Amino acid sequence: MADFKYEIIQSISVLSESEKGWTKELNLISWNGRDPKYDLRDWAPNRERMGKGVTLSNEEVEKLKTILNEKVNQTFAASASSKE
Amino acid sequence: MADFKYEIIQSISVLSESEKGWTKELNLISWNGRDPKYDLRDWAPNRERMGKGVTLSNEEVEKLKTILNEKVNQTFAASASSKE
Repeated sequence: MADFKYEIIQSISVLSESEKGWTKELNLISWNGRDPKYDLRDWAPNRERMGKGVTLSNEEVEKLKTILNEKVNQTFAASASSKE
Repeated sequence: MADFKYEIIQSISVLSESEKGWTKELNLISWNGRDPKYDLRDWAPNRERMGKGVTLSNEEVEKLKTILNEKVNQTFAASASSKE
């Protein structure tokens, strides 16, 4: 993995935990000393390793929030879980 | 990249677009023919390549929505834009 530094400025929420103890988390993270950004990704137990994920700017988080509230409703939920 | 198939079941939203034309998108994607999951990631123009991202179950999306509505407010926004 590339050489970089990060600092978890704020642990916002753990969305889920896998059987192996990896957690999917929303945090506020500073990368290489830059301004913190929202960060949604998987982490190994004790945050010893990070999995893939995405960083989100304030604007992207605001848009995501709007989208989730407006568009991700029972229709999508039904579509995503109809075979369960 | 690993050998896998995917199908974009539903394009939900484009959260942003970079100067190089990569878009950060929320979609509903079926991986290897399995039930569709929410998917938040970067895509190259015309979706010719996919960047890193996260998949989210219904439960994770619901929790994320709750978190964004309850916890990600002006306090976080101010923190994310004013600190080093």
